[in-house]
Amino acid sequence: MITLYELAGADENRRFSPYVWRTRMALAHKGLEYQGLPWRFTEKDRIAQSGSPRVPVISDDGEWVADSWKIACYLEDKYPKSPSLFGGDIGRGTAYFINSWVDSVLQPSLFPMYVADIHRHLADVDKEYFRTSREKYLGSRLEDIQAGREAHQAAFEKNLTPLRHCLKNQPFICGDAPAYGDYIMFSPFQWVRCISDYQCLKPEDPVYAWRGRMLDLFDGMAGKAVGYKI
Amino acid sequence: MITLYELAGADENRRFSPYVWRTRMALAHKGLEYQGLPWRFTEKDRIAQSGSPRVPVISDDGEWVADSWKIACYLEDKYPKSPSLFGGDIGRGTAYFINSWVDSVLQPSLFPMYVADIHRHLADVDKEYFRTSREKYLGSRLEDIQAGREAHQAAFEKNLTPLRHCLKNQPFICGDAPAYGDYIMFSPFQWVRCISDYQCLKPEDPVYAWRGRMLDLFDGMAGKAVGYKI
Repeated sequence: MITLYELAGADENRRFSPYVWRTRMALAHKGLEYQGLPWRFTEKDRIAQSGSPRVPVISDDGEWVADSWKIACYLEDKYPKSPSLFGGDIGRGTAYFINSWVDSVLQPSLFPMYVADIHRHLADVDKEYFRTSREKYLGSRLEDIQAGREAHQAAFEKNLTPLRHCLKNQPFICGDAPAYGDYIMFSPFQWVRCISDYQCLKPEDPVYAWRGRMLDLFDGMAGKAVGYKI
Repeated sequence: MITLYELAGADENRRFSPYVWRTRMALAHKGLEYQGLPWRFTEKDRIAQSGSPRVPVISDDGEWVADSWKIACYLEDKYPKSPSLFGGDIGRGTAYFINSWVDSVLQPSLFPMYVADIHRHLADVDKEYFRTSREKYLGSRLEDIQAGREAHQAAFEKNLTPLRHCLKNQPFICGDAPAYGDYIMFSPFQWVRCISDYQCLKPEDPVYAWRGRMLDLFDGMAGKAVGYKI
């Protein structure tokens, strides 16, 4: 049985980390049962055996793996008879470009738009840690940064251009059916949906329709998660 | 035998279209022999049977296919025993995201930096067509736009972030070996190398090293092409 450590808010059922969502969707895609345990930013000791200070971390029959990309590769190699996340070596390589793009472009463009909403939902034990570290990184008060989110909306939307372009051709990032590239891309949208009622996608956007298909997967797993119905 | 119509400059051996380079690399990857014919922007009638006014266009035993993405899919499906461009359906889907990103982000950020160099290398018959259509699109004189290319360099380099991130993890976009995702990504770099001595990549950039590996593929096919030794 796999154990997954999942970042949780004040409500321990609010599991909002985008990286953990990549792992959640990967586990569901492969049909693997797991136990998801709530974890807070400041509980470094509980995952120390993984060698990482951050989640997602899994423990699979005593084997610890950290980092969403490494976990996806681990699951793909360890459970080759389950549905494939990558569809082979070439698919794995190109999925890593998507991982790079989401981590360095898409997700950072959403972060300032939601940073105070994240803080608002944290457990008390995490609030000071999060505020101090993120305000140092961003150079301003969380609330001041988020207050300008309409100004960030245009830059964020510009970043959606290749995603919109792709989704005009096919229903999922990975083609006719979803796979790990979709889960990477979906993760920041699910992140913000878990902690805010601010809708960054317009209903007429092809990205909105694709997000809807993602929310419905695996018996509506992501759609039913604790969050906002946006 | 496959015939490929290739955009050519005043020197008919200068084959600089990025989209045609995607097809050239795909044909080499699959080990398919072909005849590459020089074609100019204004020779719409020679490719009319394809239904497209633009190259690449191939004719394969009387079957016409236009558009680099459609040609890659056609070759993959028609010649399944040759080395795969996509590695299956998931790889094909994710490669299309790369195609979308290169077409909508990377390539447009290079275009203003090279637009006068392209014009300078065109056949006389194409020069007026190119200047009129591109100056209308860009809203200024080609030479004026290119004169500011150092100002465009920063925006272009920022766009390289996910590519650099990806190449820190693996030698090729598609993993340990190159495939169609690499050819898409390589095509704008080869485009500008064919028509300009302005080097947009610094030698210490991981993208530069990857480009070098791409130039060496298929017995140095791209490296030996008519262009500038940058």
